[in-house]
Amino acid sequence: MRIALATLLMLPTLASSAAEPFRQIITSATRGVRTEQWTLTHRDLGTPTPWSIRKLTLHGGRQEGVEVVVVDNGVLTFTVVPTRGMGILEATAGDVRLGWESPVREVVHPQYINLEQRGGLGWLEGFNEWMVRCGLEWAGHPGKDEFVNNVGAKSEMQLTLHGRIANIPASEVEVVVDAAPPHRLRIRGRVDERMFYGPKLELWTEVSTDPGSTVFRIEDSLTNHGAHEQEFQMIYHCNFGAPLLDAGSRVAGAFRRVTPFNAHAAKDVERFTEYGGPTTGFVEQVYCIEPAADSTGRSLVMIQNARADRGVAMTFSVEALPYFTLWKNLAATQEGYVTGLEPGTSYPYNRRVERLGGRVPRLAAGATRKLGIDVSVLLSREDLLRAANEIKRIQGGREVQIDKQPFKVE
Amino acid sequence: MRIALATLLMLPTLASSAAEPFRQIITSATRGVRTEQWTLTHRDLGTPTPWSIRKLTLHGGRQEGVEVVVVDNGVLTFTVVPTRGMGILEATAGDVRLGWESPVREVVHPQYINLEQRGGLGWLEGFNEWMVRCGLEWAGHPGKDEFVNNVGAKSEMQLTLHGRIANIPASEVEVVVDAAPPHRLRIRGRVDERMFYGPKLELWTEVSTDPGSTVFRIEDSLTNHGAHEQEFQMIYHCNFGAPLLDAGSRVAGAFRRVTPFNAHAAKDVERFTEYGGPTTGFVEQVYCIEPAADSTGRSLVMIQNARADRGVAMTFSVEALPYFTLWKNLAATQEGYVTGLEPGTSYPYNRRVERLGGRVPRLAAGATRKLGIDVSVLLSREDLLRAANEIKRIQGGREVQIDKQPFKVE
Amino acid sequence: MRIALATLLMLPTLASSAAEPFRQIITSATRGVRTEQWTLTHRDLGTPTPWSIRKLTLHGGRQEGVEVVVVDNGVLTFTVVPTRGMGILEATAGDVRLGWESPVREVVHPQYINLEQRGGLGWLEGFNEWMVRCGLEWAGHPGKDEFVNNVGAKSEMQLTLHGRIANIPASEVEVVVDAAPPHRLRIRGRVDERMFYGPKLELWTEVSTDPGSTVFRIEDSLTNHGAHEQEFQMIYHCNFGAPLLDAGSRVAGAFRRVTPFNAHAAKDVERFTEYGGPTTGFVEQVYCIEPAADSTGRSLVMIQNARADRGVAMTFSVEALPYFTLWKNLAATQEGYVTGLEPGTSYPYNRRVERLGGRVPRLAAGATRKLGIDVSVLLSREDLLRAANEIKRIQGGREVQIDKQPFKVE
Repeated sequence: MRIALATLLMLPTLASSAAEPFRQIITSATRGVRTEQWTLTHRDLGTPTPWSIRKLTLHGGRQEGVEVVVVDNGVLTFTVVPTRGMGILEATAGDVRLGWESPVREVVHPQYINLEQRGGLGWLEGFNEWMVRCGLEWAGHPGKDEFVNNVGAKSEMQLTLHGRIANIPASEVEVVVDAAPPHRLRIRGRVDERMFYGPKLELWTEVSTDPGSTVFRIEDSLTNHGAHEQEFQMIYHCNFGAPLLDAGSRVAGAFRRVTPFNAHAAKDVERFTEYGGPTTGFVEQVYCIEPAADSTGRSLVMIQNARADRGVAMTFSVEALPYFTLWKNLAATQEGYVTGLEPGTSYPYNRRVERLGGRVPRLAAGATRKLGIDVSVLLSREDLLRAANEIKRIQGGREVQIDKQPFKVE
Repeated sequence: MRIALATLLMLPTLASSAAEPFRQIITSATRGVRTEQWTLTHRDLGTPTPWSIRKLTLHGGRQEGVEVVVVDNGVLTFTVVPTRGMGILEATAGDVRLGWESPVREVVHPQYINLEQRGGLGWLEGFNEWMVRCGLEWAGHPGKDEFVNNVGAKSEMQLTLHGRIANIPASEVEVVVDAAPPHRLRIRGRVDERMFYGPKLELWTEVSTDPGSTVFRIEDSLTNHGAHEQEFQMIYHCNFGAPLLDAGSRVAGAFRRVTPFNAHAAKDVERFTEYGGPTTGFVEQVYCIEPAADSTGRSLVMIQNARADRGVAMTFSVEALPYFTLWKNLAATQEGYVTGLEPGTSYPYNRRVERLGGRVPRLAAGATRKLGIDVSVLLSREDLLRAANEIKRIQGGREVQIDKQPFKVE
Repeated sequence: MRIALATLLMLPTLASSAAEPFRQIITSATRGVRTEQWTLTHRDLGTPTPWSIRKLTLHGGRQEGVEVVVVDNGVLTFTVVPTRGMGILEATAGDVRLGWESPVREVVHPQYINLEQRGGLGWLEGFNEWMVRCGLEWAGHPGKDEFVNNVGAKSEMQLTLHGRIANIPASEVEVVVDAAPPHRLRIRGRVDERMFYGPKLELWTEVSTDPGSTVFRIEDSLTNHGAHEQEFQMIYHCNFGAPLLDAGSRVAGAFRRVTPFNAHAAKDVERFTEYGGPTTGFVEQVYCIEPAADSTGRSLVMIQNARADRGVAMTFSVEALPYFTLWKNLAATQEGYVTGLEPGTSYPYNRRVERLGGRVPRLAAGATRKLGIDVSVLLSREDLLRAANEIKRIQGGREVQIDKQPFKVE
């Protein structure tokens, strides 16, 4: 079968020592590989610090057949879901959890998701990850936008909420462990958003961490395999609930400008960094933020708990991810009490609006764009202080412009 | 994975003897259980009357991977389909079959169903059960209705025919056999109709029977796990074809009022209890019926064959299920010659119409509603006579109001 | 389970010798059969010429669980995909490949296809076969058309591109090898396009070849199991890319009349038989052709490479397939450089247009229609010459009417 074998896995070179890294393919469409269960630990490779990587397959209900990879670096654990576009279900370190309690209790297999449902809100039936990518052809709210149809003409289609990438299973998944210290642990996967008369976008992602560390990195590489320039969007929808989110929790970051998403958000724009507790009937508030960067082009945002002794910091390149969305959904616990810290190429308006605002990047034929986030779990007041000082350094004394009015969106 | 394990199976207490019942989990999203095949018989438990319970997985075509549980109590056999929302594919006792010959020949896996298809009629691609639940967020005809969208605003969506529950796989399925005589056999399952910014409805169902009996019970427990009051609808769409349905078959019941669904049904409202044989080109006729109840609140409807020696009776609480729909689809055999006896919370108009008619119940936050049907297979003239007398007793001399005109529906 | 067993596999009689053919069921919904892997070779049956038949299951990404059957007759290899409606992924003989490089790289499982998506263009997410059937209820472009709804009334629905059959898994698949020489190899499958209040169409297909031969046959048998006359459409969408398609390749055939599909195709109608190389930004051109037939009712079309030493010829009955569509999509390689040679019951306009043009056949209740194509791989100049002479013989000196203007379609 030439088609099945055509895209013979071309692995980008991995930065590593002269010695070859350990490499295990656990899913491969090109090689016909599927792995029900698999475990690797530091003992298997004879490295000193304890760690483990487990591949599991979930069963029952709407999660039947879902593949997950659980990485435990000895201090930090995170769970990647290849079946759901290499999203990250949750991460934990000490008593800090990156994740939230969604009303969606199962890790829903894409076969049960119909993105078109409910006026384009079907995505919400599977939404429970800590980090879910919105994208790639579009990333924002549902509604009408233009596309090029099967006779090459501009046509209109109904976009669906947050795009398709989170409900496409990874075609290739591999585990890589560096041969040289610190023996970095890497989960790599390829997710294709490809169709005839449509996008030919390929996402290669790597989630990696060093044994014993409290930080991990999401490194994405997005390639346009089409012959034409291609619009794309990516929003890293990173969601926090208890215990980090609580009445008195705060978000902080190096910011240039904050604009409320709509009139409802505008009412509380002065308090956009503050969180209240779960509130029955709370309607989501969204803030569109231009992050500030230091001379290396990096920005930092963090969330900290009410006691100000636990938190998470995320750094990213503002060239790659120039727009940061803060989503506050402080609803009752059963409805999903959650906040989203969302670095992106765009805000979550419909792509039509984003295009008008100049926030829909394009990728030339054959071109590749690097995107990603570094995530640090903050386990003490000292950790929080360091992150706060880092924000201060990046901010460099600039004032944050706080807009009272939302963007004018027709 | 806290999410996968969060909803650790909380089983409602089971009425039983002091001795613990036998219990086998055959599907569990929380425990990661899936069972390809499994059999239990009276010999395994040392109980006297012969019975068996078999779990099978179907293969091939559109039924690849569909899970079914076949319960044979020695006299009566019924088949529950966990993959299709714990519907009941068919039941048989002696020469009586509860079921029908649908043009849909396979037990279709939900992965092949697109409810949105064909203007919201995709449900019909999998429709072949004896008992299929319509519900839970809505249960009736397709068309536009209101819902609350992702920014908390009232919005409109296209409802799809008969709702979603029949195409959601059960997350938990277990077999329970009472330790004490009569060693009741119970198939229990949980089906979630849950999403973010949507319903948080949980259905626990138990289908049970005593060894050697000709009766079985469907007991449903519906819980709103959201923080807000939630509309819901449930119609038990119970479908009969040959041999019970034939020219000369009749339906009977304790009825207060009969109203034709539309002008086409109105033409034959005087003969609403009578059935003709398969008729090419027959267009469905639907009757909306208010059932009468006795002092305990129970009503009874039955169908009997043309020879008046076989039938099925169904009893239910009119408080829980105040509306009964009679669906007559006396089409050619190849098209589906079938009648539906359908106790419900509602008639099958679009939810918009039902809401206007006051027939869309609401469930408070955290509240649970019990719903269900008792089903008796009638295997002799004496059985039929007893059921007829029971109807007479419940009717208590009240006249049935037969409306010549359908409801006014805009 | 009577439903699952109701359609007990009724095999049409197979033309064969007195001796029973070898027969292996590899997929069966009625018998609960699914086969992960299976191989049969000439050695197993003791026949002289080498051949093999392999059943494989693909894994990983969007092709997880897809079943394929690879037939190698010693000279010619073709791959049938039961999971995708018994389409043919590709065929090869010598250095000739029947197939193309689609941007869709995986053999996509129907569970990942939503035909309704993108304004009805979801079909394009799985489109990469050499031969994919368009049909059966409709076969052409998306858009509004009439259908009969669940209350027997004429209603409107949005048709989706090219119909549903290519995304329905086969319910029954068997391998048959004739006992008598030449020990013909046959892959047979049944695909149902059935629903309640909808079509009851059954497709039985057989793809067969003789060991050592460069020809194979697609024989389809389409039955209407409904009680009413049923519209149907079938287009055999046979797609060629490199190496047969190149700048200088040509299509030839016995033609009566050629009409451009639209104004864009009209511009190049004089050159409709010629192909240019991959051209970035090329917009598809479609030609609607009435094929000519000889006294036996057969027509022939062929494609040949630029060097005029390789090609493929297809013959078919013009009574069964009176319309031939030529699709030229000479786009950049990455976008899908491909041409479709498409014998059909219809042109690919929306069914509404085809009905007005008298090109939507109807099948009486219970009736069966035979359809099919014979395919020859042409491996030399002599082979091409023979095919060209055959076209000349069928054409019989008749002129081809070349319309400058497209059909008037409102």
